[in-house]
Amino acid sequence: MSLQSIKYNRGSLEILDQLLLPVQSKYVAVRGVEDGWKVINKMQVRGAPAIAIVGCLSLAVEIYPEEFESKKSLRQEIEGKLNYLVSARPTAVNMKIAADELLSLANDLTKAEDVSVPDMKQRFLNATEAMLQKDIADNRAIGANGAQAILKLVAKSLGAAGASGNGSVRVLTHCNTGSLATAGYGTALGVIRNLHELGKLEHVYCTETRPYNQGARLTAYELVHEKFPATLVLDSMVAALLRAKNVAAVVVGADRVAANGDTANKIGTYQIAVVAKHHGVPFYVAAPLTSIDLQIPSGDHIIIEERPDREMTHVGEHRIAAPGINCWNPAFDVTPASLITGIITERGVFEPQELKEAITKLLEL
Amino acid sequence: MSLQSIKYNRGSLEILDQLLLPVQSKYVAVRGVEDGWKVINKMQVRGAPAIAIVGCLSLAVEIYPEEFESKKSLRQEIEGKLNYLVSARPTAVNMKIAADELLSLANDLTKAEDVSVPDMKQRFLNATEAMLQKDIADNRAIGANGAQAILKLVAKSLGAAGASGNGSVRVLTHCNTGSLATAGYGTALGVIRNLHELGKLEHVYCTETRPYNQGARLTAYELVHEKFPATLVLDSMVAALLRAKNVAAVVVGADRVAANGDTANKIGTYQIAVVAKHHGVPFYVAAPLTSIDLQIPSGDHIIIEERPDREMTHVGEHRIAAPGINCWNPAFDVTPASLITGIITERGVFEPQELKEAITKLLEL
Repeated sequence: MSLQSIKYNRGSLEILDQLLLPVQSKYVAVRGVEDGWKVINKMQVRGAPAIAIVGCLSLAVEIYPEEFESKKSLRQEIEGKLNYLVSARPTAVNMKIAADELLSLANDLTKAEDVSVPDMKQRFLNATEAMLQKDIADNRAIGANGAQAILKLVAKSLGAAGASGNGSVRVLTHCNTGSLATAGYGTALGVIRNLHELGKLEHVYCTETRPYNQGARLTAYELVHEKFPATLVLDSMVAALLRAKNVAAVVVGADRVAANGDTANKIGTYQIAVVAKHHGVPFYVAAPLTSIDLQIPSGDHIIIEERPDREMTHVGEHRIAAPGINCWNPAFDVTPASLITGIITERGVFEPQELKEAITKLLEL
Repeated sequence: MSLQSIKYNRGSLEILDQLLLPVQSKYVAVRGVEDGWKVINKMQVRGAPAIAIVGCLSLAVEIYPEEFESKKSLRQEIEGKLNYLVSARPTAVNMKIAADELLSLANDLTKAEDVSVPDMKQRFLNATEAMLQKDIADNRAIGANGAQAILKLVAKSLGAAGASGNGSVRVLTHCNTGSLATAGYGTALGVIRNLHELGKLEHVYCTETRPYNQGARLTAYELVHEKFPATLVLDSMVAALLRAKNVAAVVVGADRVAANGDTANKIGTYQIAVVAKHHGVPFYVAAPLTSIDLQIPSGDHIIIEERPDREMTHVGEHRIAAPGINCWNPAFDVTPASLITGIITERGVFEPQELKEAITKLLEL
């Protein structure tokens, strides 16, 4: 069973405190919305899907033991608390989207005359819990689709790059996209998990991912926990690695994918894509459909957040850069579609140029 | 005047303690060979040329006030102390080469009948001090040659990549190749220094250079000290930087250059070269002739040292990676000649394919 970063049973919620990782593994009880706001705000939970799910589940935990006089008062509580949760990290758009969905459901249930107060509460709890289940199910589908795509590609070039005798593969990933960033299983790390379940994972390499070291701290933590054959490399080593170690594929996550397939993701992703292209190594992006934004025509329209210098100049309280030096600290970069072999979703793997049409069709069905 | 990492006057030597950088700038007195051995062994001084020069100068400082009964006893002292100095860091080949040269000089002087004891001491001190002067002079020549090459290339593509209105350029460098790695001035950083002296340095970007952070700690320290317009980036950001910031050239140092131009240098150099190629940015290697080894036909013959995991998993005593994760920690990588625009030496700038013939000719002259 894969690492559980979110432990939920109706009425109870615990999350693995990511601020203490990788040195300490400690679960924190989330007893309601107040706790939910805190763990999101303090970044004890991180990763866009995980934030949204923990926020919504904290509301479910709070509502569960309560009794409501009327549907209106339940609706009012839901609206107020969701707004409050959104304020914990205003830039985490997934929490806002989830809040809008749940509020719209609450509105519908309030209006529906055949729904009683206990019914409404029940159906609201179900909807909240379904988010957790859907995220995991989507990730499992991403994992299976991605693993198949990689193995098919490797089988095609049989005996060539990355395939050892039994068709096992070595893969590289960047940043953290596993159980610690999602409700469980993971996106890019879900693909790697699926390869392992199929007995086809020869080795996984993860990058340190400066400046927040999500690779060294979180992905490495997950890989050690799962006992996957794994090795940490520095961000500067990818080219040397691809040259030396017969890596079959790179798989990374995505913060946002534009309609043309351009992909915004953690800083360093674009560089890895360039290096993969140079070495003829396939480069995959794993992303749920919710991360694909057909409203954005291309990556040029994605604004890149620049983060404070201190993230680069310090590790904890320890200064690691010369005082007075300027820093450039973009949080993300954009990988052009031309460097991407395929975009792995829960509904299939698409080449960037077919993405828009394929997703439009899927959404129409 | 550029940062002085080595302060020498006959009879006195001080070095900037690099273990305290960048937080503290403190000079340490080196009163003789015992001190010289310590500062090399403890890595208070680092960088191959700097180690050799500090080692030899520590011997000069020790010999200076002494009187010798005979040339033989002086020769004996020189030999014993040089051997001792070589043992401070046995892998630092420059110290060994310098020791061999000085010992050979001591042997010649001992044999020469017209040389008195005080003469021998005088000429030995001169030779030692000449090493310091030669390193700086060579670096100045590298700086001037490199700056000219870059400005010529930029002028050719007038108005194109990297040249602003007045022909000023933005350049990127990796690791530390400045006053802190040499006797002063620097190799790749010497090129950047020369561009600045010419009023043609618009901006310099330096990479953090994990795992030892020589870029963030040492290069950034030098750039702040010199008041160059400078910005620190992470190793993962080079591709995003070259895409966003109109960089005219990359200049890096070299640990060793093979006869065909393949270049071993700090881990991450190869990746930067791949990324520079992808963006059409010229990639230069700055190296004194002593770093070019015509005995090595190609980079395939260069053995890459793999360093302890701890360098990657810790910053000081602070653990930054998950306990139990394996690491791959090559200290260097090899950049193939095909990715190198030019190799900048004190005797001119050579394309990799003309290197062997050109150097052979220079050595014959």
